[in-house]
Parts: sequence; structure tokens; C-alpha cells
Amino acid sequence: MITHYQKFCQGHVDAALEQLLQAPSDELQRLYAAMRYSVMNGGKRVRPLLVFASCQALGGEVQQAYGAACAVELIHAYSLVHDDLPAMDDDDLRRGQPTTHKAFDEAYAILAGDALQSLAFYALGDETLSPISAQQRLDMFKVLSNAAGAAGMVGGQAIDLSSVGQSIDQATLELMHRHKTGALIQASVHLGALASNHATPATLNALDAYAQAIGLAFQVQDDILDVTSDTQTLGKQQGSDAEHNKPTYPALLGLKQAQQYAYELRDQAQAALAGLDQRADHLRNLADYIVSRSS
Amino acid sequence: MITHYQKFCQGHVDAALEQLLQAPSDELQRLYAAMRYSVMNGGKRVRPLLVFASCQALGGEVQQAYGAACAVELIHAYSLVHDDLPAMDDDDLRRGQPTTHKAFDEAYAILAGDALQSLAFYALGDETLSPISAQQRLDMFKVLSNAAGAAGMVGGQAIDLSSVGQSIDQATLELMHRHKTGALIQASVHLGALASNHATPATLNALDAYAQAIGLAFQVQDDILDVTSDTQTLGKQQGSDAEHNKPTYPALLGLKQAQQYAYELRDQAQAALAGLDQRADHLRNLADYIVSRSS
Repeated sequence: MITHYQKFCQGHVDAALEQLLQAPSDELQRLYAAMRYSVMNGGKRVRPLLVFASCQALGGEVQQAYGAACAVELIHAYSLVHDDLPAMDDDDLRRGQPTTHKAFDEAYAILAGDALQSLAFYALGDETLSPISAQQRLDMFKVLSNAAGAAGMVGGQAIDLSSVGQSIDQATLELMHRHKTGALIQASVHLGALASNHATPATLNALDAYAQAIGLAFQVQDDILDVTSDTQTLGKQQGSDAEHNKPTYPALLGLKQAQQYAYELRDQAQAALAGLDQRADHLRNLADYIVSRSS
Repeated sequence: MITHYQKFCQGHVDAALEQLLQAPSDELQRLYAAMRYSVMNGGKRVRPLLVFASCQALGGEVQQAYGAACAVELIHAYSLVHDDLPAMDDDDLRRGQPTTHKAFDEAYAILAGDALQSLAFYALGDETLSPISAQQRLDMFKVLSNAAGAAGMVGGQAIDLSSVGQSIDQATLELMHRHKTGALIQASVHLGALASNHATPATLNALDAYAQAIGLAFQVQDDILDVTSDTQTLGKQQGSDAEHNKPTYPALLGLKQAQQYAYELRDQAQAALAGLDQRADHLRNLADYIVSRSS
């Protein structure tokens, strides 16, 4: 079931992204090529899926959420490009392909990432992608700029950098992940809800609780896969967390306990949706998917 | 006259920037320190000045334009941090101080730049900084995301990279600068006009023509200063264009012709304002300042 819905959403968001990534002139071909390379790479599109599923959970149509779905994926894609740079994680492989600075060069990887971030905000403001009210859209800009920046995702990367090789406790590890991956996942769910035009304070609260739990579950599962999966399935270097001396849940809790914790978080996420009807089933299934995925 | 107004505007925008750059938690102190270091460095604030002057030219108050003024300066500041990176221009000195990656490290310079871009969009959406209508504000997001991204500033940096060491003609040089510095200067003037709440198609056209001319004049003067000024006055390495084999106006036209061209562009800019009353005098003075500044 998740597969069918995932394909449907991937098709929609990939078509919209493709449109946003067309070079407007010859001189900009190489920059746009680096941007397309960084985005159109067979990514799982988990964040756009969350946008669509959250929008539908409150009775909205997928079409209303195109702009937000593209925006969160573009922010995610840019963060991976910059994260992989030699001065950061120094990774050569991403989704089974050379990372952007390997396929192009470092300067183009920096610029492509920068341009993808701008494009995310452009996509969010594109009325042709999402016909919603001006005030609703302004709220979306606030949510995304906050989640993407120093108080959110970029802040998480900074905490991550300073925790490499350190022995940290579970509270600090969760603080890092709440910023690094949690903030954008939470923003995805929140943006989808705003795009539906039917969000209420009560449903936003329920969806925020759901998002917080799956955000953490997503990271726990990522850490588990870094230990249990192989490089080909992952599409990136297996064991790279250990190699980089990064603190992880399996290292902190043990593998079995980490798996148990992921399931608990999934249950918490699904419990948070108790007040929503069957239109929230995609969100429920996504919580299952997040803790059972193999890549 | 320019000095008094410049100080007045600098005071306003610096106070607003200072407020935006407070770390929300202990773990994020170092990231915010790198961001503050990159922004609060005695910059001339030419772009915020253009925002304020354009807003006032159409009868608006400086207070309406705080968000836009902060936003353009944050985009400018992030672009300098990334431009100075070893993989890009590899500069050690900026405004007389070590560049961000020298004062911190490369990873923090990348992250600080990324976070400053997000913060620019956050500032633009902050109602406490600029009380204007939702539709007006949405138009501002469109203008800024377009000017900052691949079709604007970042695109200009990409064209710049590929032109290093190349012999290029004046048309290609101008195409590069229209993107690299022109797009954000044009956006500054446009955002100020939108912030005034009094923009009309006719006044926007006049201001766009003004902005296009001073954007180019700004770059011509920058190239001239790289030849004629000294490192201490410039606050960055004098002669670095020649050292980097960058195409410049003095190299292309000769120094005297380049100076003449800067004055012509200033005259064009002032002529574009013919239909505006004395409230546009700050814009007129800024055009003079841009071609007569020594740093």
C-alpha cells in the first residue's frame, strides 16, 4: 500500500521539481545540471510524501500541496549536497552515485546547494504550484525558514559537527536530531496541514506530536541501517557513522533496544492521530514504513 | 549628506540584524557567533540603504522596510562568506578582518552562510519588522528568491567561475554582473518600493531602470578600486581580481574609459528618476556615492 501511494506522490513531486529545474539560459546550463543532479536522483521523497499525506489527512487535495512538497525536498537536497562536502562529512557516494562535488566540483556543489535553497522559497511562493490564500502561504514561509535555518536543520548540523568523537547522552543526541532531521520533517507535516486550508489548532497539535515522533523514529532507523544494511542497499557508505565516530542510537542503547525504541516511537506517532479519521491512513502507513524501511 | 543618511540607515538595520542574530540556545552559540561575525562587521549596508531610499522615494516610512532591508543584507553577507571559501575565491581577508572560514573553520563558514540565507527569508516574513499587507509581502518573497538564486546572484557566481582566466567581451562581462551583483541591487530597490505600499507599474519601471544602471555602476567602481585603491582602504586584498585572472572593466576598457563608463551609468540612473519628486533625492545621492566611494 505504501508503495502505490509513494509512487503516486513521487510522480507528482518529480514532475513539479523537473519544471522548476530548467535552466533559463545557456550560460546557466552547468549550474542547473548540478542542481538537477542533486535533486533528480531517485530519492525516496519522504518529506513530500509527508506533505501530501498531511494535507489529505485534513481533507485537502494533493494539488494544493505541490509548492510545499517541492520546497521541503529542495531544502533536503541542498542540505545533503553541503553535508557531503569535504569540509563537512566528506562523502563520495550518495544514493549509489558520486556526490555532487565528485560529479561536478566543490565550487559547483556549494553554489548548487545555495541555489536549491533559494529555489525552495521560490517554489513555496509559486501560485501556479499551490493555489492557497496569501496569509496561509505567509505562515508557510515562516514555518519553512525557521525549520531550515540555524534554529532548525542547520543548527542540528552544527551540533552534529561538535559532537563527533564526543561521548554524549541520549538527551543531547535527541536535541541534535530534533534539529537536524526532526525540524524539516515536522515542517513537512505542518506545511501539508496549512496547505489543506482546514488546519485547526487541535489538528495542528496532533500532527505536530505525530511529526515529532516519526522524526525521531526516522533517525533511529537511519542509525540502525548504518549498522545492519550493506552499502549497495543503502546507496551510501555503510558503517560511515562508526567511521566518523558519530554518536548513534545502536551505539548508545544497543541494537535491539534501538529497534525497540523505533517501534515505540512509531506507536506514539500513530496514537497521536487517534482523533483523525481514515483520511489520515497514509500518515499511519508512513509511520510503519519509516521504521521498517531497508534503505 | 550621504554620510548622515547612511549612518541613520546603518543604525536602523544594524539594530534589527542584531536582534535576528541572537542564539536561541547554548548549543547554537558557536553557529550564531559565526553568523554574527559574518554580518556585524562594519559593512557599508549599501543594499539596505537602497531599500530604505526606494521606500521613501515613493512616500513610505523607513520602518515599513526593516524586514526587506535585513533580508537583502543577510543574502549579501551569506554570499560573501561562501564566495571567500577555499573552493571558491579562497580569500583570507574581508573588510580588514579574517574571512569567516579563517576566523572559524570551513564547515562553520558553510553552515553560517546556509543559515544566513534561511534567516533572510525569515526576516522578510517577520511582521514585527515590517507591517505590510500579505499580498505585498508575498510579492517580496518572489522578488528575493528569484534574485538570490540560480537565475540571479548564484547564477552570476557560476558564470564568474567559468569566466576566470577566459578572455570575454563586454556583453558577457555585463551578463555576469547583471546576475552576480545586479540582481540583488535591483531586488533591493524593488523590495523598498513594494514596502512603501505606494508602488505603481510606472514607478516600478523607473526604479528598475535606476537599479539596473547603479547595479552595473557599482561593479565598474568595484573593479576600478581593485586597481587604484590599497589593501587597507579596501579591507580586502587589493589587486585580487588581476591575481585571480578575473575579467574586469579596467582590463577590458582601460582605467580612464572605465571611470567614464561609471559616470555615464550614474547619469543614466539619475535620469531614470526624472519623474519622481524630491523624496527620491536619497536615491540620487546614492548613485553619486556609488561611483565616488573609495572602498
